[in-house]
Amino acid sequence: MKIILASASPRRRELLSQIGIKFEIQVSDVEEHVESDCPSEVVRELSRQKAAAVAAVAEEGTLVIGADTVVSCDGEILGKPVDEEDARRMLRLLSGRSHEVYTGVTLVCRQEGGQEKVHTFCECTQVNFAPMTEEEIACYVATKDPLDKAGAYGIQGFCARYITGICGDYNNVVGLPVGRLYQELKEKYRYEESSDL
Amino acid sequence: MKIILASASPRRRELLSQIGIKFEIQVSDVEEHVESDCPSEVVRELSRQKAAAVAAVAEEGTLVIGADTVVSCDGEILGKPVDEEDARRMLRLLSGRSHEVYTGVTLVCRQEGGQEKVHTFCECTQVNFAPMTEEEIACYVATKDPLDKAGAYGIQGFCARYITGICGDYNNVVGLPVGRLYQELKEKYRYEESSDL
Repeated sequence: MKIILASASPRRRELLSQIGIKFEIQVSDVEEHVESDCPSEVVRELSRQKAAAVAAVAEEGTLVIGADTVVSCDGEILGKPVDEEDARRMLRLLSGRSHEVYTGVTLVCRQEGGQEKVHTFCECTQVNFAPMTEEEIACYVATKDPLDKAGAYGIQGFCARYITGICGDYNNVVGLPVGRLYQELKEKYRYEESSDL
Repeated sequence: MKIILASASPRRRELLSQIGIKFEIQVSDVEEHVESDCPSEVVRELSRQKAAAVAAVAEEGTLVIGADTVVSCDGEILGKPVDEEDARRMLRLLSGRSHEVYTGVTLVCRQEGGQEKVHTFCECTQVNFAPMTEEEIACYVATKDPLDKAGAYGIQGFCARYITGICGDYNNVVGLPVGRLYQELKEKYRYEESSDL
């Protein structure tokens, strides 16, 4: 089974490689559109759109993986910050409390005869931040690390010094819940690791 | 303040670098000895022994960090496996359930006049494993990844496909709870990041 990751994110690519799955990358330029403001619905829907756009032009027998991640705090969905001031605002919001990170994943398998088998799931991870001073926030934003990340932080970098704990899949916060994803591939798509190692 | 990491682990070194702390490495050849079979006590005591041995020969004004990590499951403490069969046994034990990972950390500050300020803490993280088949266990052990790791797995590698979630600090499972460590350095040793960035 040929697998395509429908994402330009280098972090998702690394995670999928890390667990030993062979895949290609193909990114669509689909215009993302979503009505809901419920985080789990938003990421499900956006992951579906990303996977569907690539699957539409994929060969039969191909499995396409689409994913989308957002941070949710106090009922507000945080995507990537638009500038440094926006990054500082997001970090002030996250400082000294817990928030949730949602990743939606959609698997689309193009079967013979053009039929599609579509499966979507969502993982949620709770993340606990220590309090950050204004100086610490300024210092972290100056590293530029926050600027290309949902919620203005990367759990896998410098910011780990402010994260006291999580509940859920760590890799879900990085951008792809590979624990759940591998189990779903095994159960629903009869993925066999021996063929890929 | 000069900081010394009293550990040969490349994973601990990477984590401490990742959060922006500058340090040197110095490892003692102290013979580790512990009486307790309580995991939190074992790692506290071993981290103390590692830090103390290096601090004993350190300059005044130096802060030494020692750490020790064990996996605990069903009342059994799992260190590094002695061979491949032992690694398979440990993975069978961890399969399809949750266990705990304990890291003890000791900070020893050599002050003027030869006095020492010693602070020890322990972090515990719960890790949930998906069920692994005998074939999956054999396949993972064949990668050699389990052989140098407490509990016979590395959360940061291939094995992430079997880890469905955790509760606590992820980096604690890798070998050093840098979230808690940074907060302790700030509170107890007035560590200032501006001096290190």
